[in-house]
Amino acid sequence: MSFTHLVRFLAKDGQIYYGDAILPAGQSDIATATKARVIQGEIFGEHRVTEQVADVKLLLAPLARQDIKTVRCLGLNYEQHAKESNLPIPQYPVLFYKPVTSISGPTDEIPVPRIAQEGEGLDYECELVIVIGKEANEVPEHRALEYVLGYAVGNDVSHRDWQIKRGGGQWGLGKGFDGWAPFGPGIVSSSVIKDPNALQISTKLNGKTVQSSSTKDMIFHVAKTIAFLSQGTTLQPGDLIFTGTPQGVGMGRKPALWLKDGDEVEVSLEGVGSCVNRVVFDKPSSKL
Amino acid sequence: MSFTHLVRFLAKDGQIYYGDAILPAGQSDIATATKARVIQGEIFGEHRVTEQVADVKLLLAPLARQDIKTVRCLGLNYEQHAKESNLPIPQYPVLFYKPVTSISGPTDEIPVPRIAQEGEGLDYECELVIVIGKEANEVPEHRALEYVLGYAVGNDVSHRDWQIKRGGGQWGLGKGFDGWAPFGPGIVSSSVIKDPNALQISTKLNGKTVQSSSTKDMIFHVAKTIAFLSQGTTLQPGDLIFTGTPQGVGMGRKPALWLKDGDEVEVSLEGVGSCVNRVVFDKPSSKL
Repeated sequence: MSFTHLVRFLAKDGQIYYGDAILPAGQSDIATATKARVIQGEIFGEHRVTEQVADVKLLLAPLARQDIKTVRCLGLNYEQHAKESNLPIPQYPVLFYKPVTSISGPTDEIPVPRIAQEGEGLDYECELVIVIGKEANEVPEHRALEYVLGYAVGNDVSHRDWQIKRGGGQWGLGKGFDGWAPFGPGIVSSSVIKDPNALQISTKLNGKTVQSSSTKDMIFHVAKTIAFLSQGTTLQPGDLIFTGTPQGVGMGRKPALWLKDGDEVEVSLEGVGSCVNRVVFDKPSSKL
Repeated sequence: MSFTHLVRFLAKDGQIYYGDAILPAGQSDIATATKARVIQGEIFGEHRVTEQVADVKLLLAPLARQDIKTVRCLGLNYEQHAKESNLPIPQYPVLFYKPVTSISGPTDEIPVPRIAQEGEGLDYECELVIVIGKEANEVPEHRALEYVLGYAVGNDVSHRDWQIKRGGGQWGLGKGFDGWAPFGPGIVSSSVIKDPNALQISTKLNGKTVQSSSTKDMIFHVAKTIAFLSQGTTLQPGDLIFTGTPQGVGMGRKPALWLKDGDEVEVSLEGVGSCVNRVVFDKPSSKL
């Protein structure tokens, strides 16, 4: 038997495990899990969910950095977000990348380095994250979901000045700082989420809802995105695809709403759960 | 003793080794090496050059994909190339990424998938490639070269239609196909190349020189590039930085000069050597 709600966690025994989260009765947010069945073996190879139940002390990024190969992201993939950005609806998916060092966990702090404390524009973006489960190359759309391990929610943290004005038009720098891609709280198997394009997705800033939409409003839905990106490109097990954010980002508001030191950002996806990350200025970037 | 000319190669005994290339007398192009001293241990950890000499059958990408974490690239980093692209000299380095699956070796074919056979614009870009040797975060410019393992030459193969017109302004898709970042033929240690910004760099297309410049014409030189990119970002051992290309790309010519099926592209860097890669249409993308 394989997992349905994959988590990676620090257990009360001081060890780090992969596990299958045991959700309390009536709960669907993986972040509420206090226990998990320990998984033995390789997540992208032979593994099994054992009978050993461990106490969860802290949920970590649901994949270890060494298990993640490439982090792809789509821009402008919700119609209302393209409109609030004053940009045309894209004809093809708009692809950019984040480095693996931007990955962090569901409760980690978002460190804001000196370079991103200059100027304005620190912003949040709730996103459905696709986790690729097996090698995909030139995959047709009707078979694309077979290559998915599962889904998580992530925050494509962005600094608009660096992303748009000072990056020469390329978005990599302003979105790629250490810890600027928290995701989790776990990965819900594609055997549980049959239709990833019918999920509520939202962001709360300091407890107040600032983004609220559904993944059905994506311009390029999950299967189409995988099929498109696999053209001429081998997607590898452990690749992540951040699929774009709906309307309501700070940049799209009048007046603009920028994240400040100490703000708490919560991104949520129906059937998966929430990541809650605090913005922390002046903290030296974490060494790996 | 550590290496001076790191290679990874298929030996005549059928094994793949890391090695320190033994250059024939009077040669400085690593591609001419037929023998290498075998390296034991971890390239980014404890290792040593042994007395065992192996016969080189085929030079491979000088780092295995699993030893490479993130591939960063600069755009518009030579003044004359910015001019031929009709773009202003950038105020800050322009950063984009290639996925690790784009990495290939010094004599591998460049596979052109169906999606990149549409439209015009298949182009070459010779580039100095920095190989990061140890973790770098918030590194000052005057110490930046201490974090370099060595230097190689690479080809930032690009499809201009996808890069510029159909990618929504983001360059990732049109430069990221499987095998579109050949590099090598080896990595020359920074103990040998003391000044990476005084090297001749060039491209030959079917034997005819189409790019010829010096790395001294870079807008953001090697130390500045590393210092800039390490702001808020941890560069990891095995990260590659493609540092941009000089003038003479196919896009900058009148009329434009696009790569065709069967073309042979040779990129060369003084003191390092050459990669010679053949463009091959219609070949299914290689599985990893």
